[in-house]
Amino acid sequence: MSISNLSELFEHTLQDVYFAENHINKNLPTMIEKSSSTALKSLFKDHHAETKTQIERLKKVFEVIGKKPSGEECPAIEGIVKEAEELIEEIDDKETLDAALIAAAQAVEHYEITRYGTLLTWAKLLGHDDAISLLRDNMEEEKSADAKLSRLAEDKLNKKAA
Amino acid sequence: MSISNLSELFEHTLQDVYFAENHINKNLPTMIEKSSSTALKSLFKDHHAETKTQIERLKKVFEVIGKKPSGEECPAIEGIVKEAEELIEEIDDKETLDAALIAAAQAVEHYEITRYGTLLTWAKLLGHDDAISLLRDNMEEEKSADAKLSRLAEDKLNKKAA
Repeated sequence: MSISNLSELFEHTLQDVYFAENHINKNLPTMIEKSSSTALKSLFKDHHAETKTQIERLKKVFEVIGKKPSGEECPAIEGIVKEAEELIEEIDDKETLDAALIAAAQAVEHYEITRYGTLLTWAKLLGHDDAISLLRDNMEEEKSADAKLSRLAEDKLNKKAA
Repeated sequence: MSISNLSELFEHTLQDVYFAENHINKNLPTMIEKSSSTALKSLFKDHHAETKTQIERLKKVFEVIGKKPSGEECPAIEGIVKEAEELIEEIDDKETLDAALIAAAQAVEHYEITRYGTLLTWAKLLGHDDAISLLRDNMEEEKSADAKLSRLAEDKLNKKAA
């Protein structure tokens, strides 16, 4: 790898997020299995379906820049997932585990939100107009998933206050 | 480590973000040194000062829960920083390097934003009222740093459009 312009950096970052989405796609079944609350399980299932669509959108972005879809190992997402896995192993209470799963999923969403934000700005700079709505759709889905997870975490707060 | 309730999970996550802020505090001088644009250098310098204040606020949160400040190794932030370091080594163009540094810093900010959001919700649930404004101040500073970085990335866009 050697990067000398924004176009190459865009491609590298696209490969990074493509790897990240595929990594998450593989990990979501475990998160579904480990979660106890019906609402959380259902949210993870919906997001698993969304992730598959997002991977397809990323393939289209590769087409826009005339490259074959490929992943670049992404230590960031590996670190975020590793941290979640290690933590999950240590929790023996179901409700606490759900709280940790929500937090872990939000860390993933935020990583993806920031990467899509970056790619979106660069796509505009590079004139990759056909990539813009694809990247924006992925970013908006991640933001919406993050907001739903926040509401789920705060639900407990509302119940406690009631 | 073994976690059996939200109180212990709060403490663990506080140790995680304490480690993360200290890790970033150590890494910001390199980012300042590697950046070329005056505006970016100055933003990183300001954020370095903010990070030191944030670490002091976190020490106060440890006081609120009656614990000594300590860090828990955080594979997530290590992964995010490792990815940035690897990438930075590969870039030989100054302008492209600045774009990559902005993206890397935004990935860090987003990690911190999500962790502070989580800690804030849990502090409310656990009745750690004295921790709330400390965590909120840190979160708002991270959001503001992220927004400033976005504006810097988009500046190029506005210049190109002009």
